[in-house]
Amino acid sequence: MKASEHGKNGAPVTMRDVAKVAGVSVATVSHVVNDKPGARIGDDARRRVQEAVVQLGYRPNALAKTLSRGSSRFIGLVADAIATTPFAGQIIHGAQDEAWKHGYVLLVANTDGNTAAEVEAIAMMLEHQVHGILYSTWYHREIVVPEALHQTDTVLVNCFADGSGLPAVVPDEEQGGRTATEGLLAAGHRRIAFINTTTPSPAQSGRLAGYRSALEAAGVAVDESLVLPAAPEQEGGYAATASIVDSGATAVFCHNDRVAMGLYDGLRDHGLRIPDDVAVMGFDNQDVIAAHLRPPLSTVALPHYELGAAGVRVLLGRQAADDARPQRIACPPVRRQSI
Amino acid sequence: MKASEHGKNGAPVTMRDVAKVAGVSVATVSHVVNDKPGARIGDDARRRVQEAVVQLGYRPNALAKTLSRGSSRFIGLVADAIATTPFAGQIIHGAQDEAWKHGYVLLVANTDGNTAAEVEAIAMMLEHQVHGILYSTWYHREIVVPEALHQTDTVLVNCFADGSGLPAVVPDEEQGGRTATEGLLAAGHRRIAFINTTTPSPAQSGRLAGYRSALEAAGVAVDESLVLPAAPEQEGGYAATASIVDSGATAVFCHNDRVAMGLYDGLRDHGLRIPDDVAVMGFDNQDVIAAHLRPPLSTVALPHYELGAAGVRVLLGRQAADDARPQRIACPPVRRQSI
Repeated sequence: MKASEHGKNGAPVTMRDVAKVAGVSVATVSHVVNDKPGARIGDDARRRVQEAVVQLGYRPNALAKTLSRGSSRFIGLVADAIATTPFAGQIIHGAQDEAWKHGYVLLVANTDGNTAAEVEAIAMMLEHQVHGILYSTWYHREIVVPEALHQTDTVLVNCFADGSGLPAVVPDEEQGGRTATEGLLAAGHRRIAFINTTTPSPAQSGRLAGYRSALEAAGVAVDESLVLPAAPEQEGGYAATASIVDSGATAVFCHNDRVAMGLYDGLRDHGLRIPDDVAVMGFDNQDVIAAHLRPPLSTVALPHYELGAAGVRVLLGRQAADDARPQRIACPPVRRQSI
Repeated sequence: MKASEHGKNGAPVTMRDVAKVAGVSVATVSHVVNDKPGARIGDDARRRVQEAVVQLGYRPNALAKTLSRGSSRFIGLVADAIATTPFAGQIIHGAQDEAWKHGYVLLVANTDGNTAAEVEAIAMMLEHQVHGILYSTWYHREIVVPEALHQTDTVLVNCFADGSGLPAVVPDEEQGGRTATEGLLAAGHRRIAFINTTTPSPAQSGRLAGYRSALEAAGVAVDESLVLPAAPEQEGGYAATASIVDSGATAVFCHNDRVAMGLYDGLRDHGLRIPDDVAVMGFDNQDVIAAHLRPPLSTVALPHYELGAAGVRVLLGRQAADDARPQRIACPPVRRQSI
């Protein structure tokens, strides 16, 4: 930041100031500064404007440049809940870093799932001539595309809408479930339970498919009685403990880290040790939980940062996308001491 | 969103389209649409432009309106870490809601504490003629004000800089510590330990001052041996357990919920029940932890949403601010089953 960008009175230097010093009209300054093709400006006037720009430290207005180009360097990000989850934050972070890398600025709007706020956010972004919009949800799910999104380039992030023709970037739930189960198989377990969520979602079906395919690939018969439904939070994991103990499972893959945290409490109440008596695998790699349980939890990370970054790359045409099916981003394993 | 805002080919309706239909110049359309004072437009031309605007569903460009007004409806928010904490998200949420209420849009930049990214973010915001900037940190601390922030109106949120002349909005750590301790006193406890963080910060000194003042107001002598230092996370709380047990304290105020979560594990290992043997009070009301411990944790909430909202109100002159000392926002108690 140069101090000279502001005049002596502290106010920003304007085109009017430049015009005054150069002894030309504001229109002439505008033509020179914006390098308008076809504008006939005398060499002398052009030189005087250029000198005044340097002398005063004039900074061409970003909005004016946007107007003269007819499109902006904004990318919009509409998210349904950045406030109540640490997840969406990483999506924003990845999208911002990638946008900046290519000279774009991210306009972020949090809608809390409120339709009126969503309509307002999208309208605001269209009015600011965004290059395009990332539409993101805090958990992976199918959505109905808001009508207004069809008025600009849109990429769905952490969500999808089959048949909408909009490209989507989502976590690879099946690969994640397979990776989690493979971690338990590699530790020698054969009787592996899966505490799955009761909420229908791509995570529910995808992680289950991955669990099954890993067992099958290892030649372990799938025992459906080892797949237990539970509310996807600590209370659900705690409540599932008795069934886990009764099942004779030596290892448990939990739908998410919160379920694993509740299972930790339940196993302790039963006098069972982790991983000596029962091995536990989570999912999410949730910041304030996973690394800080006793013992620290082995888990699979949701690739939120990468989802945001990939969304921007698809929007800017820097990463190929198939409009017919969502692009899947891998969920990497995070090994700690619970298996 | 009206479908008519886009022409038949799907492209946005431009001023040029309006000019064509109305049979006037683009300059004339601009004068009418922007209602420029002093522009001499005949009644007939004005009427034809207005009709064409309605017929085509032309939407005046928000950026153009900003330029014609000379200032934007943007408020910048520079945050050091929205990604790695669920806290800053609530600051953004509160700031966004309050900004929208007054017709402003929030431009958000996450800098990860990187000075180069911070300089770039502030420059970007100044170039977009933001009305002002909220500068926010994810934990309450004193900062050195980035030089560029003095080029626009700035409000510090969740941080402060004594002597900078910049208004600041911060959580009332002392009142929070007092409230937490009062909760334990009200439950009949007199021997109350405080596991404080080892990290020097306004939270460290403020919560301790609140702890002391609550004890003194209740006529309980402060026993310095009951103030125990610990790393401000689960591991610190767990490590402090033996000292807590030895101290004979019947209740423990923990610097934050993560410390309380570690203490829960430690007390369980000692065969002690919460709250029957030891009552526990947290701080932060952290989303994924506090309500989901066994038993659910009584705590004090950090007012992040309110910090963001108050920051915007101060910036817009809708809430009084004292440039000499930070404005303190109350930390409300959240009562659950651990006391």
